[in-house]
Amino acid sequence: MAAIKIHGSPFSTASQRVFATLYEKDVDFEFVNVDMRTGEHKKEPFLSLNPFGQVPAYQEGDLTLFESRAITDHIAQKFASKGAQLVTGEAEMKVWLQVEVNHFEPASSQLGWEQVFKPMFGMTTDPAAVEANEAKLTKVLDVYEARLSKSKYLGGDQFTLVDLHHLPNLQCLIGTPTKKLLDSRPKVSAWIADITARPAWAKVLAMQQKH
Amino acid sequence: MAAIKIHGSPFSTASQRVFATLYEKDVDFEFVNVDMRTGEHKKEPFLSLNPFGQVPAYQEGDLTLFESRAITDHIAQKFASKGAQLVTGEAEMKVWLQVEVNHFEPASSQLGWEQVFKPMFGMTTDPAAVEANEAKLTKVLDVYEARLSKSKYLGGDQFTLVDLHHLPNLQCLIGTPTKKLLDSRPKVSAWIADITARPAWAKVLAMQQKH
Repeated sequence: MAAIKIHGSPFSTASQRVFATLYEKDVDFEFVNVDMRTGEHKKEPFLSLNPFGQVPAYQEGDLTLFESRAITDHIAQKFASKGAQLVTGEAEMKVWLQVEVNHFEPASSQLGWEQVFKPMFGMTTDPAAVEANEAKLTKVLDVYEARLSKSKYLGGDQFTLVDLHHLPNLQCLIGTPTKKLLDSRPKVSAWIADITARPAWAKVLAMQQKH
Repeated sequence: MAAIKIHGSPFSTASQRVFATLYEKDVDFEFVNVDMRTGEHKKEPFLSLNPFGQVPAYQEGDLTLFESRAITDHIAQKFASKGAQLVTGEAEMKVWLQVEVNHFEPASSQLGWEQVFKPMFGMTTDPAAVEANEAKLTKVLDVYEARLSKSKYLGGDQFTLVDLHHLPNLQCLIGTPTKKLLDSRPKVSAWIADITARPAWAKVLAMQQKH
């Protein structure tokens, strides 16, 4: 089998999604660090891997993939018999995969940008943007609280890619005042405590120490 | 087999995605019109079908689904042997499905909102928003032009859900000044001419006449 190479950064939420999947599956991979501070992802040779100039990119022999959620899907299918069972064939799981992309990601990534990444780059947080995105996130979390009263995980009764895809942005929000929106919802809090405690996720966070 | 009901509107781009898939598969369905002008989608009983209050919703016996792209995936898998073959198992197809959601949809839906729906509701188009989103769409279309020089369709050599998911927003843009960005790219123009000419798409547009 061709070796798997991941071109990305331990600080990119999209890259973290892919690393978490590989660790859950206990699959060896080569990590190629893309220096985003020098804009390496916006230049060749990276643009040949992903014309949109975003990390991560996946290489396995002649196969090149980008878009983190397409990569996690590929890994979960390819190594279906290894490690955690991350995919179920159920249509309901596909619904909640879409909910993450279309509802959770836009609000949570903007909140991360305003409260974590902007200060890191010496930029100023925009309180109006925080307020608007907290209002959006509140609606999403209300739906999640109801959903998690019916099933242990968002996609169903087992941990799947649906939950895993949330990890990077959730981890980001935990370090911001937005944490209050998570803490005030018992089912959501218990779910976050459960999924962030997974050993595979600890390995993703440990990558940040090394780089 | 339980009858399929689609709760939606012929004027909603997300609903159109689902109708197009059903027509491509030549599958009978019952259409339940949700009157968005009176906010029917934001009240019960619709909220029991989709807690996010967005059309469309799919019902088939006890199975209820929402999120248009999860519904199209379910229909395409369930009726794999009927009508057009809309799904390939290839990882590359999954990449381009994600590109549509994460790159094409945000820019094109904002351009549709500003130039089609706002005027329809008596609101004023914001030229700055149009300019910003045309800049985003330009980057996406440049990537598409290069991709379509290598394969006839975005997901590969055959028409799949990847292309189908673009139809509603493309149709919307064709009626706006943003059309210039489509017309100036030969491969993109030929692709749009091809996919909008499909008989299934004509049936979706015909639904608008009836309602």
